[in-house]
Amino acid sequence: MDRRNSLKLGASIVAGMAIVPGLNASEKMPEGQPMESFWDVVLNRRSVRAFKPDPIPEEDLIKIINAARLAPTSGNQQPWKFLIIRDRKKIDALKTEALKGTEAYLRDTRNLSGDELKKQLEKSEASLANGYLSAPAIIVVLTDNNSRYPTYNHWDGPLAAGYMMLAARAMGYGTVFITDSFPEELTKKVFNIPDQYTRVCISPIGIPVEWPKKEKKDLAEFIVNESF
Amino acid sequence: MDRRNSLKLGASIVAGMAIVPGLNASEKMPEGQPMESFWDVVLNRRSVRAFKPDPIPEEDLIKIINAARLAPTSGNQQPWKFLIIRDRKKIDALKTEALKGTEAYLRDTRNLSGDELKKQLEKSEASLANGYLSAPAIIVVLTDNNSRYPTYNHWDGPLAAGYMMLAARAMGYGTVFITDSFPEELTKKVFNIPDQYTRVCISPIGIPVEWPKKEKKDLAEFIVNESF
Repeated sequence: MDRRNSLKLGASIVAGMAIVPGLNASEKMPEGQPMESFWDVVLNRRSVRAFKPDPIPEEDLIKIINAARLAPTSGNQQPWKFLIIRDRKKIDALKTEALKGTEAYLRDTRNLSGDELKKQLEKSEASLANGYLSAPAIIVVLTDNNSRYPTYNHWDGPLAAGYMMLAARAMGYGTVFITDSFPEELTKKVFNIPDQYTRVCISPIGIPVEWPKKEKKDLAEFIVNESF
Repeated sequence: MDRRNSLKLGASIVAGMAIVPGLNASEKMPEGQPMESFWDVVLNRRSVRAFKPDPIPEEDLIKIINAARLAPTSGNQQPWKFLIIRDRKKIDALKTEALKGTEAYLRDTRNLSGDELKKQLEKSEASLANGYLSAPAIIVVLTDNNSRYPTYNHWDGPLAAGYMMLAARAMGYGTVFITDSFPEELTKKVFNIPDQYTRVCISPIGIPVEWPKKEKKDLAEFIVNESF
């Protein structure tokens, strides 16, 4: 990278952040409440992994999905489905299936058995019950393999998921973009998702127990001005 | 899909849209200006393909990238680079390279030659000059193949691009998520992008000539309530 270019732009970053109104607005905002300002929403969204049990009003879920489906999409194909799960029996079924995978791993790879195996499994169950699956609802973001331009779905999917997560934050809800913790095939089996859909992510959604803090790299590390 | 579930949720969509403040706020907003409201930004972002030549103040570009880098990211890896190109010579070089591809296609696949070839090429050049490349700046969104969890970059990349496009809209700028119109290899060659980066998309950015309208599917088509 051309260091002069990088430094020149870097120097104006601080100026830019001070000049532009709204960028530091989050400092004045109480966390965890609905917020109207675009910049507040962006600055205050976090990945949330523990939720209060309060149910989510249906109109809030609808408003969030209404935002998600306005994401950029290749050739306007809009290949998305948002599967909303609020049925506790289904959420428990997801936990049961996930724990079967955990048990196989503990037994076959970690060679645990008897009381040790039992103890580890109880720990995993509590971790799911108090973590991801403490949420009152789950949204599975899917793309349709039979969409008009399916080879573009791998972009369209995350774009809509990102919109969804921002909209949830605007309404005061936490989300998290989960992939491997609940493998795609497991999710599709438990929730009877037809083969024609590809899972983008699965996200619990609910009022966070807390909004976690996260260390981020410096802004200047992301910017390349004109040339590497 | 369970029709009763679908219809039940469908019926509450209208109620939800009417109840929740802000959802229809865009009707009151003049288009094309910066906007503070999260919902206005989401509702008014469009894919823009023709731009006014007005340059973009550096602090605006910085504010947009500052939003983009706050997107969800796997294990907090933040694998992104945002390459900003404002040098008109570089933007023209992209056009020249893209037209070489067009010429090869017209010559070899469409079997054009002589005046016919020349006419088609002039048309393509004008289309680029008045379209994508009328923008005063280009942002290339990249992910680093040497990031901590590179197999997750294909999610992280579009997530940040979506944030970037929303932030640009909040500032009054248009963008568009381009992939095939400027193939990755061509973009990397023209802008000397090191091999270690994967291109997510390339987006012109600038004040739109207009904010295009786009027909969207009905909201209810995207929602699956509990089961397919």
